[in-house]
Amino acid sequence: MSDIITLAHGAGGRLTSELIENVFSVYLEKPLKFDDAAVLDFSGKENELTFCTDVHLVKPIFFPGGNLSLLAIYGTINDLVAMGSKPLYLTLGWIIEEGIEIQTIKELSNEIKRASDECNIKIVAGDTKVVPKGQGDGVYLSVAGVGQKKSELKINSRNIREGDVLIITGTIADHGCAILLAREEFPLKANIKSDCACLDKLILPAVEEFQNDIHAMRDPTRGGLSTVLNEFAISSNVCIEIDESRVPIKDEIYGILDPLGLDPFTMTCEGKMLIACSPNIAQNLLKMLQANPLGKDASIIGHVSSKVPGRVILHTKIGGTRFLDMPIGENLPRIC
Amino acid sequence: MSDIITLAHGAGGRLTSELIENVFSVYLEKPLKFDDAAVLDFSGKENELTFCTDVHLVKPIFFPGGNLSLLAIYGTINDLVAMGSKPLYLTLGWIIEEGIEIQTIKELSNEIKRASDECNIKIVAGDTKVVPKGQGDGVYLSVAGVGQKKSELKINSRNIREGDVLIITGTIADHGCAILLAREEFPLKANIKSDCACLDKLILPAVEEFQNDIHAMRDPTRGGLSTVLNEFAISSNVCIEIDESRVPIKDEIYGILDPLGLDPFTMTCEGKMLIACSPNIAQNLLKMLQANPLGKDASIIGHVSSKVPGRVILHTKIGGTRFLDMPIGENLPRIC
Repeated sequence: MSDIITLAHGAGGRLTSELIENVFSVYLEKPLKFDDAAVLDFSGKENELTFCTDVHLVKPIFFPGGNLSLLAIYGTINDLVAMGSKPLYLTLGWIIEEGIEIQTIKELSNEIKRASDECNIKIVAGDTKVVPKGQGDGVYLSVAGVGQKKSELKINSRNIREGDVLIITGTIADHGCAILLAREEFPLKANIKSDCACLDKLILPAVEEFQNDIHAMRDPTRGGLSTVLNEFAISSNVCIEIDESRVPIKDEIYGILDPLGLDPFTMTCEGKMLIACSPNIAQNLLKMLQANPLGKDASIIGHVSSKVPGRVILHTKIGGTRFLDMPIGENLPRIC
Repeated sequence: MSDIITLAHGAGGRLTSELIENVFSVYLEKPLKFDDAAVLDFSGKENELTFCTDVHLVKPIFFPGGNLSLLAIYGTINDLVAMGSKPLYLTLGWIIEEGIEIQTIKELSNEIKRASDECNIKIVAGDTKVVPKGQGDGVYLSVAGVGQKKSELKINSRNIREGDVLIITGTIADHGCAILLAREEFPLKANIKSDCACLDKLILPAVEEFQNDIHAMRDPTRGGLSTVLNEFAISSNVCIEIDESRVPIKDEIYGILDPLGLDPFTMTCEGKMLIACSPNIAQNLLKMLQANPLGKDASIIGHVSSKVPGRVILHTKIGGTRFLDMPIGENLPRIC
């Protein structure tokens, strides 16, 4: 087998088959790999399916604390978990640039295998395309996921009400900052790792315990915490008030972002969940989250009021008050 | 709203929201657009779900007989239909190159709406990423689909047996040839259109009628008929014998491919299905297919024997016999 990806590897012929057999087979469910679609094992009326997709094109592909594969698998799982659903099946679409080393694809495949084993999820179908050199950049990964949730669960962004409490499960901006530092062209170096993580084991037991007292969840990836808070405020037409001093941010992250004028509230997280819940369960939920290493820095960061529906108000550390807006764009492209 | 895609359109912030509201909303299921994953309406035990994915990166984006959107939606639907399943839900992942005109994205979105209406399928979730100029080429579309099939149906490529009959639902190589001609750098011109079509209305009534007498189906896209025939022969460990003179190919297609030394058996189709079925239903299935405009050129092209298991034998027009191999690569990149 060739060491380099050629256009023929994406052509659906013999070299595509070789790539599937020699490389992708490491994570594929064996009996399914020759069919166009996967048959999903599913039954029951008390359950609904959830279905989501994400395209991942982080640069660099391997970065401190993670890589493209973990980001893609964990990210899709976290999207399903945010609905209170148990992730079951994934499909993978590869867009590979001609000329990349097969060894890189192998390493990414091994990481996919590791992540899917860790999360006990099955990868049941896939597609591989190769674009000519210069019409892509390394590897892009598109993932779709199917999960299962109890029909009575109504966790969604339109479900937030006055009095609700907002919890973030840990420090923000870690992933965005790690990618910023990992870019070759970036001169500063610091020991900051991506928070890239799979949140099923942190979140699903909390959903099991608190059911519909959890009103909404979302992982603040691209666009950061600001974006998700604004989406919540708009979707439920409520005012969200955030206490800046309670939002956990690592000192090193402030140290990097502050001189650059970058706002940690707009930086990507890849292993955190923002939760809106009933005030009566907030303390117990917080304790449950903090008992898990992935949630040890969980914090109550704000509450829901009726002051300015559809907007997010930030009570700043120095005692001021301002609107926290959705960022217009991204601080850096190819973040996830 | 800007006329040009900028990196900020893929950043998950306000411009991404604008793109979703002003452009993608044309095809999105409204109540679902603000959540990470879609809740699928599903119940019953007599049914199984099917789940597939495909990445589409055809060049040019608009070509005679179709465009990227139709290819992506129809292609995913055809993958589900090939399992005998009714397509229900799709997700869409966009990879857009910075600098492309919003008007192009609008046109593609309108075509997605048209195709999903035609096929009565719901687009329930999506993701948008923008890559910096020069790290993509126009638009790539990744689609995942979920369908539903009767649990008792066992239509798959491992299910083909000696005596089975092979039917192709129409002429081959149309799409591949249309793309070849549509490439600006290609000097020949001819009136050849892509066969890009949605096969649910052609195939699903046949599945309803003939049930498990249909043993396997696959749409011969990338790699063409040769690839699918070889996959069938390998998966079921049978010998497939094809009568070249019965394989429908348009004269104009021969006229283009023959002087170039290109083999129509390896050229992509986008609106055809290869079917392996019991001999006792073959004539009735053929009649049923031919009664539909999409199947008017349907033809019995061969049968399954035990001569050389795992291989495809071609009985040529001039009376010879040779193996028909899987192509090693693709005649042209970015075909679908």
